Amino acid sequence: MSYAELIETTGRVNDFLNAGSVLSWDARTMMPKGGAESRSKQLATLAVAARDLLCSDEMKRALDGAARETAGKDEESPEARIVAQVREAIDYHERIPAELLRRKTELGSAAHEVWAEAREKADFSIFAPALTTMVDINREMAEALGYEEHPYDALMYRFEPGTTQAGLTTLFARLREGMIPLIRAIAEADKPRSDFLFRDYPVDGQMAFALKMAEKIGYDLDRGRLDTTVHPFEVSFTRNDVRITTRVNKNYMPMSLFGALHEAGHAMYEQGVDPAYTRTPLATDLISLYAVGGVSFGAHESQSRLWENHVGRSRAFWKNHMDDIRAAYPGTLDDVSEEEFYLAINRSEPSFIRVEADELTYDFHVMVRCELEAKMIDGSLEVADLPEAWNAAMKEYLGVDVPDDANGVLQDVHWSSGQIGTFCNYTIGNIMAAQLFDTATSKKPEIQTALDNADYTPLRNWLTENVAQHGRRFSRDELLEKATGRTLDPEPYIAHLTKKYSDIYALN
Amino acid sequence: MSYAELIETTGRVNDFLNAGSVLSWDARTMMPKGGAESRSKQLATLAVAARDLLCSDEMKRALDGAARETAGKDEESPEARIVAQVREAIDYHERIPAELLRRKTELGSAAHEVWAEAREKADFSIFAPALTTMVDINREMAEALGYEEHPYDALMYRFEPGTTQAGLTTLFARLREGMIPLIRAIAEADKPRSDFLFRDYPVDGQMAFALKMAEKIGYDLDRGRLDTTVHPFEVSFTRNDVRITTRVNKNYMPMSLFGALHEAGHAMYEQGVDPAYTRTPLATDLISLYAVGGVSFGAHESQSRLWENHVGRSRAFWKNHMDDIRAAYPGTLDDVSEEEFYLAINRSEPSFIRVEADELTYDFHVMVRCELEAKMIDGSLEVADLPEAWNAAMKEYLGVDVPDDANGVLQDVHWSSGQIGTFCNYTIGNIMAAQLFDTATSKKPEIQTALDNADYTPLRNWLTENVAQHGRRFSRDELLEKATGRTLDPEPYIAHLTKKYSDIYALN
Repeated sequence: MSYAELIETTGRVNDFLNAGSVLSWDARTMMPKGGAESRSKQLATLAVAARDLLCSDEMKRALDGAARETAGKDEESPEARIVAQVREAIDYHERIPAELLRRKTELGSAAHEVWAEAREKADFSIFAPALTTMVDINREMAEALGYEEHPYDALMYRFEPGTTQAGLTTLFARLREGMIPLIRAIAEADKPRSDFLFRDYPVDGQMAFALKMAEKIGYDLDRGRLDTTVHPFEVSFTRNDVRITTRVNKNYMPMSLFGALHEAGHAMYEQGVDPAYTRTPLATDLISLYAVGGVSFGAHESQSRLWENHVGRSRAFWKNHMDDIRAAYPGTLDDVSEEEFYLAINRSEPSFIRVEADELTYDFHVMVRCELEAKMIDGSLEVADLPEAWNAAMKEYLGVDVPDDANGVLQDVHWSSGQIGTFCNYTIGNIMAAQLFDTATSKKPEIQTALDNADYTPLRNWLTENVAQHGRRFSRDELLEKATGRTLDPEPYIAHLTKKYSDIYALN
Repeated sequence: MSYAELIETTGRVNDFLNAGSVLSWDARTMMPKGGAESRSKQLATLAVAARDLLCSDEMKRALDGAARETAGKDEESPEARIVAQVREAIDYHERIPAELLRRKTELGSAAHEVWAEAREKADFSIFAPALTTMVDINREMAEALGYEEHPYDALMYRFEPGTTQAGLTTLFARLREGMIPLIRAIAEADKPRSDFLFRDYPVDGQMAFALKMAEKIGYDLDRGRLDTTVHPFEVSFTRNDVRITTRVNKNYMPMSLFGALHEAGHAMYEQGVDPAYTRTPLATDLISLYAVGGVSFGAHESQSRLWENHVGRSRAFWKNHMDDIRAAYPGTLDDVSEEEFYLAINRSEPSFIRVEADELTYDFHVMVRCELEAKMIDGSLEVADLPEAWNAAMKEYLGVDVPDDANGVLQDVHWSSGQIGTFCNYTIGNIMAAQLFDTATSKKPEIQTALDNADYTPLRNWLTENVAQHGRRFSRDELLEKATGRTLDPEPYIAHLTKKYSDIYALN
């Protein structure tokens, strides 16, 4: 009886969080501009309701009863995991003083406008005071949450549990060792043509083709839909309603297409979660208070990057779909061969802006942010010195000279809302994507054969079986061990990039 | 301090209810079909959260404190009204046993499918058992809520406070006396041509024209948007985001146009509520638990019917906009004069289906339902005898022979979800619309002059000042008295219909 109560009560937490997600989706896709102020109050009420119910006496009673009722269950059973996760989440949230949370939320609202002004004027000094306070609040947050080695570890826990500053340092060093030589060599190599990507591609045609390809790789439209937004995203309201957006540039077609494939990868993770986990903690992130079935932000990113890069940017994909894209844009790509198309969508070039970075240079944008965040949090870097440190790192890693703060330290929205510790998930996602794809295609050669023949079902099934279906039952490293035999390992990723870019740019 | 707490706590109730409204809007306009089951759970959780917070100890403490703090305030002041309304709402909801509410909700979900099957098969006997239980539950509900004369009064209170079965009986008798002679005379008269309404009207063109006209009469698109649905509706998420839908039939253009004008009338009510009332009980129906600024369902309907019928179906409107509609559908209406168009959109003909009924015959559909509902609730009509009673009433009032139950007693969805007592608001809305329009144009002749010149601002301003701005501060009858000098009065409505239809059909 008590376990059923725990499931029902956590189900209501899930409902509040999913309702919040619907309101957020609506705010970004459909809401008239007048609705913003009321909407932010509605979202705040839902967030507080979810947290309060999670930490309520009602929940604790149900939890204690459920713990007694499920005692002796296998440690990896869904029941045991649910009990453990609810207990951990209550403990996590109760460590954060209400007063600190309120200060963070209030500052987040105010800081966003300050950041937007600073970015528009390309003047970091406008944002610096708010960021200083935000760093202080995050440092308080880290102390409240607790950590073993570095306060940054406490902040990353919410997004990527188990990741540490020490671990990232080792990981990033290995990535640099493998990738910088490639970037340096490509800078000297001939560039493939890409002029045809910038031709006139009608907006409606782009949306139709993006949706067709997303469906082709397995995104279920009976439980989803595609819209356009300024920044593409995926969001789920349980596995039964998982929506994606993409952005369309009339004169740069890859944006809509790869945006849709990326978000469809995220969406298939959610759509593939075991239906039995719907509304349970195994499909609710009770730490970040976000109704999501993926086990970590990095694990989620692995699915989007796998479908976007390992499938969507592969030679095989365009061998199979070049005729489709030619038909989608009649006359526009007649002078372009499959090979030219493949080379163009994989052009690599260092740039200032993270969200526009290519597969090879993307991780350096992540490294810059993670390293600087960690230093701000441990106090070894003053906020005032951030732009200089940023520009120096961009120069060192990517060899680019940042022209101004708007194209540099002010480009991302995250810090304005107080999010510190989340960037690592992008690189962890890239690494996991390569590790999973390597295992899938090595263990089951028929998966690659199917991909060569435009059949995406075997790969999707393998990912559902080994990743998606488990929802949040296993930790990210447990999941990786079960699927690949080892925890996070950057070698398949480095090997993938080395092979791919050596080939494209005829290096060596 | 306590009054501020009451405002903040009722603000959270408003947030929950508005969040539910967003989820409902999304379910009807955007949601992929797979999302239905999860969505209904999310909606249930939000509804329970709103009710629980309303009746919580936290709310009662804030209420008691606020009552002390505002003691001595003018009885009509917003503060005094808020305190009184919250107290009344708590009392109302606490009279309903939780167990009865649960039975009603559960039956509602199940009965909807049974009703849909019965309607599809045009077989009332399939629905009869569920309806019998629903009537019993509503009777229990009436006993729990309490009433002075008739149990039906207790049920109508939620939708149209103060309305009684006795009052409706008198009102309906007067309407019949005024309107039946018109209907009988029209049956003998020549029919105006209307063939051109059924021509080919492109869907996109209809939506564009409907939106243009809605905006023209004053619907603010910075705080609104128009979409298409099977059944048109209006919904607000505070006055800052008020959305409407309409439905489009490619071969019957008036549906989209008058649907949009009707819903825009509802929307302008919400958009016109005093901004100071946002998130307060004066913009939250705490009895029906629906985040709405209108004072009753009937008052709301008065605004939609006023704009749809008194403005949108007037001669002046088409004198001014005939060129616009001709331009919207090039070539389609070239052979149609203003007068022919005006006559066609005002054709009156008795029919079986309420939602397709014209201005003159609509109220008879309402009377049939209200009278039969009251009899089922007081036990003077058995559910099994309902179809026969229905068909007899339709014959008596409108002279039509109902062909089958699908076109008769099964046509409306309301009973399947247990809604009994709501139909009266349509007729009350019609009566109020005429009463308000008559007062506005009599007191301020410049309003009619403006309408004659396609200027809708003076009328809209009068309605904002006399109706919308007050939100739920005054009762419906208080509002009517302040605006028109008297409570609900059917005479202007009967006079309007008599004048209009005598002219159109050249009666007498």
